[in-house]
Parts: sequence; structure tokens; C-alpha cells
Amino acid sequence: MKILVTDMTPLGAMDLPEGVLALPFDERRRVPEQHRDAEALVVWGQNPDLESFFADLPHLRWVQTLQAGPDRIMAAGLPEDVIITNGVHFHDVTVAEHALALALANLRRLPECLEAQHEHRWASELGGIQPLRPKGRVTTLWQSNVVVWGFGAIGQTIAQRFSAVGAHVTGMAHTSGERAGFTVLAVGDADEALRGADVLVMVLPTRPDTHHILDARVLDLLPDHAQVVNVGRGSTVDEGALAAALSEGRLGAAALDVAEVEPLPADSPLWDAPRILITPHGAGGRPVGVEERVSHNVRALLGLGGEMIGVMPR
Amino acid sequence: MKILVTDMTPLGAMDLPEGVLALPFDERRRVPEQHRDAEALVVWGQNPDLESFFADLPHLRWVQTLQAGPDRIMAAGLPEDVIITNGVHFHDVTVAEHALALALANLRRLPECLEAQHEHRWASELGGIQPLRPKGRVTTLWQSNVVVWGFGAIGQTIAQRFSAVGAHVTGMAHTSGERAGFTVLAVGDADEALRGADVLVMVLPTRPDTHHILDARVLDLLPDHAQVVNVGRGSTVDEGALAAALSEGRLGAAALDVAEVEPLPADSPLWDAPRILITPHGAGGRPVGVEERVSHNVRALLGLGGEMIGVMPR
Repeated sequence: MKILVTDMTPLGAMDLPEGVLALPFDERRRVPEQHRDAEALVVWGQNPDLESFFADLPHLRWVQTLQAGPDRIMAAGLPEDVIITNGVHFHDVTVAEHALALALANLRRLPECLEAQHEHRWASELGGIQPLRPKGRVTTLWQSNVVVWGFGAIGQTIAQRFSAVGAHVTGMAHTSGERAGFTVLAVGDADEALRGADVLVMVLPTRPDTHHILDARVLDLLPDHAQVVNVGRGSTVDEGALAAALSEGRLGAAALDVAEVEPLPADSPLWDAPRILITPHGAGGRPVGVEERVSHNVRALLGLGGEMIGVMPR
Repeated sequence: MKILVTDMTPLGAMDLPEGVLALPFDERRRVPEQHRDAEALVVWGQNPDLESFFADLPHLRWVQTLQAGPDRIMAAGLPEDVIITNGVHFHDVTVAEHALALALANLRRLPECLEAQHEHRWASELGGIQPLRPKGRVTTLWQSNVVVWGFGAIGQTIAQRFSAVGAHVTGMAHTSGERAGFTVLAVGDADEALRGADVLVMVLPTRPDTHHILDARVLDLLPDHAQVVNVGRGSTVDEGALAAALSEGRLGAAALDVAEVEPLPADSPLWDAPRILITPHGAGGRPVGVEERVSHNVRALLGLGGEMIGVMPR
């Protein structure tokens, strides 16, 4: 079996069964003639024309994606018998760390410190002796209330990270329950938790039912001092409503690693909204554990043991 | 017994023994005549003339400071029989969180993201698909090597926080040993650890033997990609050597919450050093657990049980 492996991410050696050949290739271009017999792919899904790209691969049995949410590959019209496995867990630690970095940067007022720094100004108003819990502002994640919206693998890791610095974390998801030791509320039952949230971290996938799910109604529920952090998908946020809430002082801060249109257009109102921190979809992008996963999934595919991990429902 | 309690920090009710009276006062001014019979103080040590301030209090038996490192109070010439207790643990969680915020901000390149944001520019070069471990740069604390220099209460909390996001943490202190589950190396034996450090977090007190202890020699030991974070005291860093290491590309980044002279003078070379993040001594300043500590220490002082916590050697 021939597996074509994207060259966009440096990967280490893979422990593959005899007869399985892994070859690096450039996924942004059409597959070269001599490799169109490939039966498997390990790819991000970065080809600009995925439908033609896949049409060149009539023997394809399996696509291992590196993305946690392989939206484009799912929508590319692959035959139903082609197995698509997602990158579950590849991005847990990096995305969770980024969410923590963003939340802390805003709480610790690093953007304002940097502004002062440009002026060579020691911003005494941002340091020194200060109240732990001033009215209308949160100064620390310690004993803060954090709601994590989206409670899959990444959401659970976010919950662990925020919990480790002393935050009280509640999950929010399609279905309620107890997951990874955290209480998870169903979206319809979470209004009270949102009213008490100091930080709302969003890590939802793109789906019809998550489109603009952070809207004016949810923003109104959040306290005026609350911070919204989005490390999921840009489509889940009504950006106009978010910019308005920031401008009108109805939201404490926002940090977005994703946007509905990426790159975020230069004329987006988000750029100049107050108290916002924007990073260019850099939370993940550097997957961890790919080699072991591919080895495992190949074996499972070939009936050599185990179940394939991350199989997407078709 | 009359205790004067600083009004610079909002404090909750204290559970005090009968006959003990706690009164708020302004520590920045001289003590009013009618309160010069006070036997105890709870203060930051912010009076500009501490010697005259203390001279007004002939009955003083005990000073509870809110600072972790009460340098100025120790140097104010109090009689040797006045007990000085420090603010051990008051700042553990807030300072550790700030150290984490600073380290993550630099690793996640938030200052560069903010620069791009000012220009309404989605900085694609800082996001997207990227190597996990590029040559000469650290992109995540996960599996990074972190050395925490100064391993008292705050240092140990820093170690726990960095460890919780997946860093490998080693302590460095005057004496070696195992503390709070971490290996602590004596300063003389730590060169190898420094050579392998991705992040060096400093949280040392001001003392004659810590003056400029981060000097050109130590900076040379660190890898060129390493980051230095200082949340201790500014006197422990040779700022000229630090600025030179950054300018000459021999240090990856720095984040300083403290400076040798505060406020940092406008003409300091640190302001324009590349890859530096400066916050105005805002890591702590909002003590946690003061009320319980004062209750405890009053009881111990009056022989009602327990030992006083945080007694400074005189």
C-alpha cells in the first residue's frame, strides 16, 4: 500500500507494516502521475481544488487529516467508502496553551503594557498595589469562572489548563454530562453559567448548528467585564455583534485566533474594536503524535489489530 | 492591642481575639497622634520615610508586611525585638500566573501579532501550518525545558504552573535538593541545566549575593533561543548585559516585570531592545489570604496557639 504524506509538516519516522510505503508529496499541487495509485493520504487538505485533487486518486481508501476539524475535506465529495479520519488530539496541547496565553494576556493587560512600552513609559497605573477583585474587572484566572464552549478533546484540555491555574471551569456542549471530571451543561441550560462567566473560551467546529452561535443574545448574557476567547472556528461568532459589544462597553475583552473570513479583511470592524487581541490562526498548526497515529490507523485499516481512531461519520 | 492596617489594599473582616482592635490607616503618612500607641502594623512599607514613620511607634512589637520580600522595612532600622513577618504565600498564585502569562506571550509571539493588528494585517507568517520545533525557536511550553531560579514559595508555584502546561521544570537555588517534587540544583552546579534551558524564570529576592546575578556569563550559557522572565527583583539582573544579549541575537526574548530602578527611566536601553516585553511591576500587588494570616499571627504573638508564619531573621 502506498501512502502519500504531506510535506507541509516535518514528521519523524513512522513504524509501518511490511509492504506499506510512505512517500512525501506536495499536497498543494495535483498528485504526480506515478503516484496516482496511492491508497491512502496524510494531508492537511490545503489543495485549492480538493475535488480535482481527489479525482486523481481512484484507488483511495483512507484519508488521514491533520486538522482537528477537516471541514473542507468532508465537503470535497469523496466517495462514501473512503474512510476519513480526523486529527483528534493532534492539537489538544497547542490550542489549549494558546487559549491560556490569550486569556492571560488580556487579564494581565499586556496589550496596554506594550502600548506604554512603545512610549518608553512605565505604566504605573497597570502595576503596583492593586485590588485583587476590583469592580467590573477580573485581574486573575485564579478563582475566576471560566466556561469552555465545545467540550471535545481540545475543550477538555483547555479545561485542564485553566483549572491548573485555579479557575473554576464549566463545560458547555450539545449534550450535558460529566466529562474529564468537569460538569458540562447543555447549551439550552447554560444561561446562568454564562451570566456568571468571567471568561468564555470557544472551541466549536464549523457546522450548520454552530453558525454565529455566539450572537447578541449570548453576548448580552455575559457580564460586562467578561472576556471571550475563540480558538475554534470563526464561523461560530457573529463578528458584528462582538465588535458592537466591545465598542459599547458591554464586553470586557476579546481574543480571537480565528475569523469568519481568513485572512481577516483589512476593513473588518474587528481590527479597531477596543480591547481585542487578534492572532492569525496560530493556536495549533503544529500537530503532535501524527507518526504514532498513522502507524496505528494503518494497522487497523489493514486488519492487523485495533480500531481506527478519529473516523468521521460519513 | 491595637493593630493599624494599611488602607492601600481592600481587606475583608478579620477574626481577631478579644481585646485586639484593627484600625485602617494611611501608611503613606505619619501615624496620627492618637494611634501612636499601636503595637502592631499590617503594611506594605510604602511610607517614603520609613525611619521617621517607625520612630513614631515606640510600642511596636510586630510588623506584618504584605510584600513577599520586605526589603525596605528590613532596612529601616527597627529595634531588634520588633518581629517582622513577611508576606510568604500572599503572592504565590498571582506572581506565578504573571510569569506564565509573560512566557506564553513571547512564545506565542503576541507582541508581533499586536503590531500587525495595528496595521489591520492578518500576520499569516505567525500562524497557519508551522513546525512544532523549528530550529532556533521554541513555539510552546509543552515539553520545553524551564529553569526556575529562586525556589521559595513563589518559585515552587511557578514550577507547578509551568509543569501543568507540560514543561520540564528544574529549580535553581542557593542549596540543592528536592522541593515540592522538583529537582533543585545549587547555582554552582546548574551550568548544564542553563545550557539546555528554553525559558529561565527568575524570582530572586534583593540581597547582596543576588546583585546582578544574571550577568553576561549566565546569559552566555543560555541557548540563543532562550527566554528570560524576571518576576523577582530588578537588582538581580545586569540590565546592560541583558539588552546587549537581545540586541546581538544571543538571547531569544525577555520579559521583565521589575527593573533595577523603578519606574524604569525613559532613557533605559531596555525599552528599545528587540523581543522584550516590559510590565510595570504588576505580577503581584494583590495579596491573597492576608486576613487569615493576620488572625493566625496575632494569636501566635499573644501566646494563644501556633507559631508565627513568615518571621524574618533579624
